[in-house]
Order: sequence, then structure tokens, then C-alpha cells
Amino acid sequence: MEWFEQLRWGEDGLVAAVAQDARTGRVLTVAWMNREALKATVEKGEAVYWSRSRKRLWRKGEESGHVQKVLEVRLDCDADALLIKVEQVGGIACHTGRESCFFRKLDDGRWVSTDPVLKDPKLIYGEK
Amino acid sequence: MEWFEQLRWGEDGLVAAVAQDARTGRVLTVAWMNREALKATVEKGEAVYWSRSRKRLWRKGEESGHVQKVLEVRLDCDADALLIKVEQVGGIACHTGRESCFFRKLDDGRWVSTDPVLKDPKLIYGEK
Repeated sequence: MEWFEQLRWGEDGLVAAVAQDARTGRVLTVAWMNREALKATVEKGEAVYWSRSRKRLWRKGEESGHVQKVLEVRLDCDADALLIKVEQVGGIACHTGRESCFFRKLDDGRWVSTDPVLKDPKLIYGEK
Repeated sequence: MEWFEQLRWGEDGLVAAVAQDARTGRVLTVAWMNREALKATVEKGEAVYWSRSRKRLWRKGEESGHVQKVLEVRLDCDADALLIKVEQVGGIACHTGRESCFFRKLDDGRWVSTDPVLKDPKLIYGEK
């Protein structure tokens, strides 16, 4: 697995991973991968991240069904960030029910939500 | 500057910042911003990052002239990553002379360079 060791893993064992919708070109999510997550992503062909908050592997879509099917994995010049081109199942990447997690735009000194909620999170995750 | 404090700055005082070419849709770079870098980026309308290796502010293009003019700043749902849509001056974001830093693609267990060098780095930076 020489390709695997060419990455410059951070002191925390992580690299940043950007997911981009291969069809729309939209940047959907920025998340983190450790070695295990990247290995699982490549083997499974679906995005698996390391959740820094939950401190465990996070199979994207494990609850929501909004899996990211990986079409392409790219590495940047200093080998510490990944770009994965994905097919976003359901067209929803964000836990708020929006296409992209980057749904807020800086507008005249405030963050303005610009994107519609495509599906009520309660319908995605159930009442909590 | 309430918008500024809404970010969830990491323990190291940084957030990840993804630059995307507004015209081509290509993800160009993943870099880091601290408070000062973000402030400078918004004030100047050009990407300013925090260089983790050099431990100083890094005005993107300061040496190469390949400035990233900022058209839009977006924030993700958990407020710890930025997406900036940019006009990439010169059409070259990478220090290797390529459009994007993500010029390598994982192909059958190895990283394959898929993108052409648009300009010889020696012509960008001078002989070193």
C-alpha cells in the first residue's frame, strides 16, 4: 500500500477530505479521514470519515441513507488533503436536509442561508 | 464582528478553507485560515491563508502573482470549514504550475498525475 503511505497524515493521524458532487460540481462537505477511514472508503467505494466529535468511524449516510458513492479520489500537491468526487445519494449531503453543508454565504457582515431544505431532517432521521 | 465569532475555530485557532474556481467549478486548494487570515481575506477580497509550515500569514499569490480574488465566502453547517469561490488569476493555483493542487488521481493503487503543467514553476518563481 505504497499509495497509502504517501499521504502526510497530521499529528492527529488525520487528513482533510473534501467531497464534491461529480454531477453538479458543488462542494458538499469537508470532513476528516484517518488511515482506517480512507482504507474503508477505497475498499467500499463509499465515503467513510473519521468523526472528530464522536471519535469513531462515520460511514456517511449510515443513518440518513445519504451515502456518497466515490467516483474518484484525488490528492493535493502537499499530500495532506483529499478530494473525493462523489455521487450523492438522495442529492442531500447535509444533516439539515440541504444539498451542501455550505449553505450559508457571507453577505454584508452576516451569514445568510441561501439554500432550500430539500427534506425535513425529521423525515430523514426520525423524531429525536 | 458577530459573523466572525460564529466560526468554531479549532484548538490551533484554525479552520479549513477550500478554494473553488467560480468559473470552472474546480476545487483548487485546501488551506487554513486563522482569525487574522480570514479578516484579511474579507477586507482585501483576496485569499489570505495561514501557512502551517511557515507559521505566518500567506497572501496567496504573493510570490507567484497567482492571486485568488474572492467572489463568495461560505460556511458549513458545523461552522468549522470555509468555502471560498474565487477567480484564480493566471488560471494556476498550484505551485507546480498546474490549475489545481489536486492534480493526482488514485488509479489502481497508485497516484497518477492527470493534469498538465501550464507554466514552468521556474518561470513563475524564478530559479531557486
